[in-house]
Amino acid sequence: MGNSAKGHTLWFIPDGYIPPQSSGSLTSHESICVLNCSEEEAKLQITVYFEDQPPLEKLEASVSARRTFHIRTSLLEQDGRRIPAGVPYAMEVESNIPVIVQYSRLDATQAENALMSVMGYPAR
Amino acid sequence: MGNSAKGHTLWFIPDGYIPPQSSGSLTSHESICVLNCSEEEAKLQITVYFEDQPPLEKLEASVSARRTFHIRTSLLEQDGRRIPAGVPYAMEVESNIPVIVQYSRLDATQAENALMSVMGYPAR
Amino acid sequence: MGNSAKGHTLWFIPDGYIPPQSSGSLTSHESICVLNCSEEEAKLQITVYFEDQPPLEKLEASVSARRTFHIRTSLLEQDGRRIPAGVPYAMEVESNIPVIVQYSRLDATQAENALMSVMGYPAR
Amino acid sequence: MGNSAKGHTLWFIPDGYIPPQSSGSLTSHESICVLNCSEEEAKLQITVYFEDQPPLEKLEASVSARRTFHIRTSLLEQDGRRIPAGVPYAMEVESNIPVIVQYSRLDATQAENALMSVMGYPAR
Repeated sequence: MGNSAKGHTLWFIPDGYIPPQSSGSLTSHESICVLNCSEEEAKLQITVYFEDQPPLEKLEASVSARRTFHIRTSLLEQDGRRIPAGVPYAMEVESNIPVIVQYSRLDATQAENALMSVMGYPAR
Repeated sequence: MGNSAKGHTLWFIPDGYIPPQSSGSLTSHESICVLNCSEEEAKLQITVYFEDQPPLEKLEASVSARRTFHIRTSLLEQDGRRIPAGVPYAMEVESNIPVIVQYSRLDATQAENALMSVMGYPAR
Repeated sequence: MGNSAKGHTLWFIPDGYIPPQSSGSLTSHESICVLNCSEEEAKLQITVYFEDQPPLEKLEASVSARRTFHIRTSLLEQDGRRIPAGVPYAMEVESNIPVIVQYSRLDATQAENALMSVMGYPAR
Repeated sequence: MGNSAKGHTLWFIPDGYIPPQSSGSLTSHESICVLNCSEEEAKLQITVYFEDQPPLEKLEASVSARRTFHIRTSLLEQDGRRIPAGVPYAMEVESNIPVIVQYSRLDATQAENALMSVMGYPAR
């Protein structure tokens, strides 16, 4: 099917939440899992929306050509700003070329884990 | 990409259920997670469908401009009517402007938690 | 938004599985959660596909007007035929009017539960 | 509705991960659950994308006519190459005829299980 870009350039994930605690052998975390099928690097700009404060805009990430990148949201950073743990938020993922975006969360608040995953909502 | 409204004005979630019990350190709950990317407030009207009684109509909520709101379904209320716990139901979320809707449930019936999440089904 | 039918008349769920065991306080089960927003009853015909035998066709169910029905797959029955537990299968849900279909599974094989849910794949 | 092919011929799953460990009574695994409604066999070619190495291309599988196949990703193999456990990856599933693809993961790293599932993202 060739190596052309597949997917969309704008994705949304309304339910973001970084669990503040971990117990057991795994660490609580969320990831935005991005697949770039094309022959060029995908440059992402991520906007984070909150319930009670203005958005945190233009957190940057990139995904190499013909690679996936499972991005830990807790590691996104821009000018020292990060997504705080324990706070409900939402994400907008914009890419310069089409990509495919899935969101997954591992909650290890308890010793035993809980998992959830959704495909992002593509808007463009 | 500007601050225009994104998404749809009508969303459905067929599998609603408020777990009646909690144990462990977290509380069972469900949320409808709504993202409003626009510059104006989104006004929501939520209709709740049951298996054996007429719908509960026009529960109201709102999401501020350029904010997300993770709405606990157990807190929705209209004229003293609420969604009962422990009962299978379904939800219709109508908005005056386009928004994006995801549904998530944390079941803490047992000490260890279970999570599920789906993007809503957009119909208009 | 009126009471007209919303959704699709043909839905697919590739990952069906009735967990054969339960422990703890809840019972393992899966449900197809169907929402019928219209003013008339929805009549469903469910076809069950297996890995190694011909499909089980035309299991019937119905959803009343303006109601939801969270159908336990283990209770579907036609001429004494049921979906066996512990076997991978897939489902096709056909309706005479548009409905919305979500699939959820509670696995209580262990004392602590696991949950998963997906919106069905609409094909028509 | 007849026995014609339903679905799409190209699907993506950005969040692939084979849990390297199991405890308790179940085994950690992931599956791509494929439904083939048509009267002919579906031939699949699966491309696996990694974070830091070139894709593993053209892992083959097939799904018989009017059957489902819940394919354990750990069993996919081509010329002795397999998907490694414990490594984030993404999948592209291409089929010669339309099929429907769902992805599910059972994580039994802990004695109690965690489940997640998403419908694949259809691109063609």
